[in-house]
Amino acid sequence: MSAARAEALAALAAVRPPLAVVAEPERLAAYEMDAYVQKRETPLAAVLPEGEAQVQAVVRALGRLAVPVVTRGAGTGISGGATPLADGVMLVVTRMRAIHAIDAAARLATVDPGVPNAQVTAAAEGAGLFFAPDPSSQVVSSIGGNVAENAGGIHCLKYGLTVHNVTGLRAVDGDGDLLAVGGEALDSPGYDLLALLAGSEGNLGVITRATLRLLPRPEVTETLLAAFGSVKAGAEAVSAIIGAGIVPAALEMMDRVVIDACERYMALGLPKSEALLLVEVDGGTEEARESRAAVERILAACGATEVRVAKDDEERAKLWKSRKGAFAALASVLPDYYTMDGSIPRRALPEVLEQVYALGREYGMVIGNVFHAGDGNIHPCIFYDAAKAGELERSEELGGRILELCIDHGGTITGEHGVGLEKLRQMCLQFRDGEIAAFHAVKAAFDPAGILNPGKAVPTLKRCAEWGGMHVRGGRVPRPDIPRF
Amino acid sequence: MSAARAEALAALAAVRPPLAVVAEPERLAAYEMDAYVQKRETPLAAVLPEGEAQVQAVVRALGRLAVPVVTRGAGTGISGGATPLADGVMLVVTRMRAIHAIDAAARLATVDPGVPNAQVTAAAEGAGLFFAPDPSSQVVSSIGGNVAENAGGIHCLKYGLTVHNVTGLRAVDGDGDLLAVGGEALDSPGYDLLALLAGSEGNLGVITRATLRLLPRPEVTETLLAAFGSVKAGAEAVSAIIGAGIVPAALEMMDRVVIDACERYMALGLPKSEALLLVEVDGGTEEARESRAAVERILAACGATEVRVAKDDEERAKLWKSRKGAFAALASVLPDYYTMDGSIPRRALPEVLEQVYALGREYGMVIGNVFHAGDGNIHPCIFYDAAKAGELERSEELGGRILELCIDHGGTITGEHGVGLEKLRQMCLQFRDGEIAAFHAVKAAFDPAGILNPGKAVPTLKRCAEWGGMHVRGGRVPRPDIPRF
Repeated sequence: MSAARAEALAALAAVRPPLAVVAEPERLAAYEMDAYVQKRETPLAAVLPEGEAQVQAVVRALGRLAVPVVTRGAGTGISGGATPLADGVMLVVTRMRAIHAIDAAARLATVDPGVPNAQVTAAAEGAGLFFAPDPSSQVVSSIGGNVAENAGGIHCLKYGLTVHNVTGLRAVDGDGDLLAVGGEALDSPGYDLLALLAGSEGNLGVITRATLRLLPRPEVTETLLAAFGSVKAGAEAVSAIIGAGIVPAALEMMDRVVIDACERYMALGLPKSEALLLVEVDGGTEEARESRAAVERILAACGATEVRVAKDDEERAKLWKSRKGAFAALASVLPDYYTMDGSIPRRALPEVLEQVYALGREYGMVIGNVFHAGDGNIHPCIFYDAAKAGELERSEELGGRILELCIDHGGTITGEHGVGLEKLRQMCLQFRDGEIAAFHAVKAAFDPAGILNPGKAVPTLKRCAEWGGMHVRGGRVPRPDIPRF
Repeated sequence: MSAARAEALAALAAVRPPLAVVAEPERLAAYEMDAYVQKRETPLAAVLPEGEAQVQAVVRALGRLAVPVVTRGAGTGISGGATPLADGVMLVVTRMRAIHAIDAAARLATVDPGVPNAQVTAAAEGAGLFFAPDPSSQVVSSIGGNVAENAGGIHCLKYGLTVHNVTGLRAVDGDGDLLAVGGEALDSPGYDLLALLAGSEGNLGVITRATLRLLPRPEVTETLLAAFGSVKAGAEAVSAIIGAGIVPAALEMMDRVVIDACERYMALGLPKSEALLLVEVDGGTEEARESRAAVERILAACGATEVRVAKDDEERAKLWKSRKGAFAALASVLPDYYTMDGSIPRRALPEVLEQVYALGREYGMVIGNVFHAGDGNIHPCIFYDAAKAGELERSEELGGRILELCIDHGGTITGEHGVGLEKLRQMCLQFRDGEIAAFHAVKAAFDPAGILNPGKAVPTLKRCAEWGGMHVRGGRVPRPDIPRF
């Protein structure tokens, strides 16, 4: 055992109240990667605190030794936010899973960071309420991670990302001090530290408690599935629906590659088509009926070749089955796939999708698209076979090109998955040196010693300078030095 | 002229491209206070840049001399965010008033900081769009100040505060560097600097450009005025409407003091009552009709003594006249009044209002209430006569007690007016030392030399220690040292 590791273990053993420490290599293997499977690492140790005071004590003890702390919930993140550091300790919050309060009158839930997302809605269901953010990992992924990565989901078109559904946070900063920000009221004086902590990927603080906004279940939900003869026609229908002032609860799209995979995997009898659009509208009885009728008119006007409307919850579940099972179905295409996550202005959807397919042809790789079309959050899936030499690397290169495409069209390199380790290079293309420097200054304000998840989410200026420019139509361009808007 | 002043003027004269500098005492008088009339000061000078490059040059030039910079738009802020500093320079953005783009398809406007709020909607009207934040100063108050103070307005119950309606910002930090944050896409990677700059009251950066979200004008708007026999009954109707899942576009309340003032001033023929509720619902035809019917049922069930429904735009304007003219009408009560601004959880409305009146009786001062009831944003108006010795000071003390009441009920000391100079003391009661220290650390990240609006928005820890605790039911309690949630 290295001297540094022995010292860290001794410091953790001295934490009061005492807490569970995992140090055996075979048990540490459970923490060596999150769902970003491209990178694994064995940490010095893992600790499983059961309360806020232990989190503070761990951060302080490791801070004194300058040992990095990587926080992890369920480990479902797919950008590498919770990938261990070889010289760091994993702080695992899965034992902090109390639901402190469900306040139906105020429509708020106060929970520990290790509470799985779906359990919040389960606890609020009796009061007719739900927690809106619904990442596809919601059965296991935990609130702390949802907040840290600012997770999205199918319904964030109407109800916002996680940050829009959190009203209060408690977090432990890099000095081990507790911060309590936000609350229940309309506005919070002082700088908006809540928005800053949300989406900060474990770099500014360890989330130890969250107060979440609950919403009343809509009276009525209407679900439609529409088939189109081309991806372009489907994408244009998306713009037409939003352009008409309708805010669907969900507006999802899948292309032929994904439709075929779903049919092979689940034999759902989906319409034969190049693109499917799944539209859900909700609200009061009249409101939902009015919205549904408007959506039907628009789908027809945009050339839908078939429209199915769910008559009841059973039919609704059937329509959703393809979308919700899509990622599992995709395993039938090739052994491995790499899911990208970028946002673009909605009007750029037809053009960007076309260019994504063109990049697939350039690299000789199949790309399937199943994504949150309504908010311009694309998820191209690049298929490859990791057993074939060089395919993993080529998928990563192609993925990087897709993110550059998003930037080039006025979009961003994240929609709901975060930056983590995966997109560090593209951060240099998204931002100018000034913004990157501001990110580092903010990091130093919360974590002067830089022990919280170092090296994630924000690249160093030096690496950015080395990495240079980006690929765009017409060749490579240098990193931006003037603002994009 | 002091040596420091001469040095500052020389530095400003050297700025390129050259810019307008105001140095004559009689012209400087125009900038000696904003709408926080309790405090006036003569600055060293005022500058009126016409572009971003000049803003950067001014901040750099003054930074080298360690001369503070206070940014000002129209000067309508009522918490003293733009009160000059005697040793500082006013940076006045009123000449930066270009509307760079109205993008109807993307529903975005990109504008200079000096553009008056109402001009954004005027420019977007042709496309059927509007900018939702509508502070009562909207005809003159400018976008830069709206963003810096995170302004609200009548419609923020449904459409959010300014921060929720901004998608991109450019700002000059304390080093004179330009930051460009946010954009058009769903999510922005990196820490959320946009949310941080919004509401930072000129302390973190000078806003030089904003991209604003535009919304489609609702098809139909329905407006109702309801009378109640008590403030408590009116406040309970507010909770009942929100509790039913209705999100009105506006939900405003006024009490007897305000109703009587409006009648004296405008003779509107308002119902004789202790409290009036003004409710507006909007949306598609069916949706608005359904909401209106539901609101009517609830108002009746909550004991409304009279309900008037506007039949057309003319009647709607008439119903709004009392609310929109209320603050002007209040001048008929006593020569002066002081408007407070706090947020409370909606369910606490009846109790807090009762205690506000009790405080008025304790101080022997009349208080009137006209406010955004739907989002728990109260605006008690304390009436006094500044010509009488000690009345101004007593109104300020009473105002402070009202803010403490908001904190004591789980609320905050701001709703939409900001902290400025006015609420520095109450910041110490709202926050623990840990949060105050975090605010200062964030400030230092953007403005290491502390030249941007120093002394505003966030108190020093030393002052907080001196100021001690707060008045609550049962006596005084010390400053908080444990989180409130």
